[in-house]
Amino acid sequence: MENLMVWQDIQKIRSEAPLIHNITNYVVMNTTANALLAVGASPVMAHAPEEVEEMVTKAKALVINLGTLSITWVNSMLKAGHMANHGGIPIILDPVGSGATRFRTETAQLLLRNTPPSIVRANASEIRSLVLAEHATKGVESIHTPEETLEAAQFLSENCRCIVSVSGATDLIVEKSASIRILNGHPMMPRVTGLGCIATALTAAFAAVNPSMFLAAANAMALMGIAGEIAGENCPGPGSFQTRFLDALYSISESDIESRLKTQLF
Amino acid sequence: MENLMVWQDIQKIRSEAPLIHNITNYVVMNTTANALLAVGASPVMAHAPEEVEEMVTKAKALVINLGTLSITWVNSMLKAGHMANHGGIPIILDPVGSGATRFRTETAQLLLRNTPPSIVRANASEIRSLVLAEHATKGVESIHTPEETLEAAQFLSENCRCIVSVSGATDLIVEKSASIRILNGHPMMPRVTGLGCIATALTAAFAAVNPSMFLAAANAMALMGIAGEIAGENCPGPGSFQTRFLDALYSISESDIESRLKTQLF
Amino acid sequence: MENLMVWQDIQKIRSEAPLIHNITNYVVMNTTANALLAVGASPVMAHAPEEVEEMVTKAKALVINLGTLSITWVNSMLKAGHMANHGGIPIILDPVGSGATRFRTETAQLLLRNTPPSIVRANASEIRSLVLAEHATKGVESIHTPEETLEAAQFLSENCRCIVSVSGATDLIVEKSASIRILNGHPMMPRVTGLGCIATALTAAFAAVNPSMFLAAANAMALMGIAGEIAGENCPGPGSFQTRFLDALYSISESDIESRLKTQLF
Repeated sequence: MENLMVWQDIQKIRSEAPLIHNITNYVVMNTTANALLAVGASPVMAHAPEEVEEMVTKAKALVINLGTLSITWVNSMLKAGHMANHGGIPIILDPVGSGATRFRTETAQLLLRNTPPSIVRANASEIRSLVLAEHATKGVESIHTPEETLEAAQFLSENCRCIVSVSGATDLIVEKSASIRILNGHPMMPRVTGLGCIATALTAAFAAVNPSMFLAAANAMALMGIAGEIAGENCPGPGSFQTRFLDALYSISESDIESRLKTQLF
Repeated sequence: MENLMVWQDIQKIRSEAPLIHNITNYVVMNTTANALLAVGASPVMAHAPEEVEEMVTKAKALVINLGTLSITWVNSMLKAGHMANHGGIPIILDPVGSGATRFRTETAQLLLRNTPPSIVRANASEIRSLVLAEHATKGVESIHTPEETLEAAQFLSENCRCIVSVSGATDLIVEKSASIRILNGHPMMPRVTGLGCIATALTAAFAAVNPSMFLAAANAMALMGIAGEIAGENCPGPGSFQTRFLDALYSISESDIESRLKTQLF
Repeated sequence: MENLMVWQDIQKIRSEAPLIHNITNYVVMNTTANALLAVGASPVMAHAPEEVEEMVTKAKALVINLGTLSITWVNSMLKAGHMANHGGIPIILDPVGSGATRFRTETAQLLLRNTPPSIVRANASEIRSLVLAEHATKGVESIHTPEETLEAAQFLSENCRCIVSVSGATDLIVEKSASIRILNGHPMMPRVTGLGCIATALTAAFAAVNPSMFLAAANAMALMGIAGEIAGENCPGPGSFQTRFLDALYSISESDIESRLKTQLF
């Protein structure tokens, strides 16, 4: 699909090797660094309050990921986030586990308010938890159907003035005036840990080279889905899938994208 | 072996996808999450004192693993452990490195006393260190032979009223009235980091679906050994072994288990 | 090259399985443990101030790696380092990110002064940052060319009385009276996270069996480069490269080394 220009962005990432500052969780530090390197970006992982402000000013995008959260890291997330906001560096927020515990939900809300992200990248249940938390005093009960997920993403997008990128069997990217669905992907993807976190890291790589946060979010999910399809072909299991997925990020070609990309703009 | 019913438990894990709460070490967070996903369980890694009590109540089993231990995490282990004990959620304790430093041995003892586990899953030297620590004032010297390891496991099992699962070339699972040896496995397994920790995580997955902690411990070690044999066939090295091991956990079949399982009940 | 005796050292590592104590970063804990196991060493990761002094006395070498640094770990690095210095256990320092933030540069300087390492293992930009920091008051501007990198490594080596091992397309190992270049390697190596940290960990394994820190540093880089070449042959991407690299560390033979090793002593 020409409008997305996924391939042009990939070429920019490969040639510019943008530095992506990640404050992310222990489970995925290795795999998200490898995914960023495979696509051509330059990852750095740094979380110490003594250095995050200095580090983020050298980066083209900042990932804040709440998996394996602890209170000492929230301080660093706020420090790095303020500096990124100040310097016009896009923040991609992944509220991992929002809704699973109050600590996660409240930290996600704190970051949404105090260090506004350009893009929130999450799964449907995390998006729902954030909307329900906002609605908590108004008696909204629950959000379950795809239509309700779309409405929740639209509500969050308007309320927080950011792009909302929801991963799932079909990915959904929402901004004020437009939405897009990415239909690519593979059923083995949820059987590998950290693919959602990799989606967030790649979204940051695209946000580093594309001034449109909406297109950056969509292109990242397109790349995820297509690389997932390539990795999943005749794949014996999730161990092999991981390996092949990194290989696909590295070797993906314009024709892979042209022949596979399936989207719905609405 | 019919009595173990490994396959029935695997089917239950695949269909129920039990949530396993892991407080585990940095080295293996990624690989244990992937092993749990591969077998069909749902891993969550969370260690913040602000959230572990809330998280564990949603889980079907709790892993407490002492690798890369630090004092701030002990507090979270105790909090999560108390809540698990209170809610009847099985705790699987892996005293990684017990015996290597006093800090590890004493933390293992602290957890054994204050948050009694259903299963202790460890290697022979860690089991010995716990028994020697209990015996410290009584002049017991050392424990080296297989017979002494069996006696140590029996002592620990009786003393702590828990199942003791000892991994090695032959795995040994001990309860008050019965013991079983699992003879499956592959010599490349000790050349991959974290396979012991994966054994612990899988033990938690089986404990989530099997009310007998003895059978859960035995079935997990049976799956480990058989998946290791499948992964090790014509395997060029430990890099490939890791990949194939996850693939085997994902694709293992009833006939793989029936044709390979070798046990000694005694 | 006979003088290096890479193969003899590998055989020693395989037969002695020396314990390597790593205080390293979250991103590479798993992959460096696996690399050490693949080559035949015994890794342990431990960072708690309560145990590092006890742990390091059991080890044959200590890795101190500054990636994902935080202030609480610096204390443990100093404690372990003092004990290692006291016990004659070689320290291999990897000043990851020195120069990227003041916190990293200053911590690297602190460790260089207070817990003198036997070997500093880093990339050219980290070496430069340390030299520039020493020169800060003297108006030295910058260091860019290979000749300047060599001079910087020589300066650091003399100033800190240690071996300096600089990884790059060509690796450079420097001591007071001699230098060696290792010309082996593969262009896919920088596309996998943590290979520099693996080089540091393997350097520790060689330092555990070879009394010459210069030869240990050179042999480790020779093994890295040759294993990289083997892994890189017809390699579809960095996912496969990782797997094959561990396999190569495990299966490398004397003839692989004899037929491939390319060095320049000067």
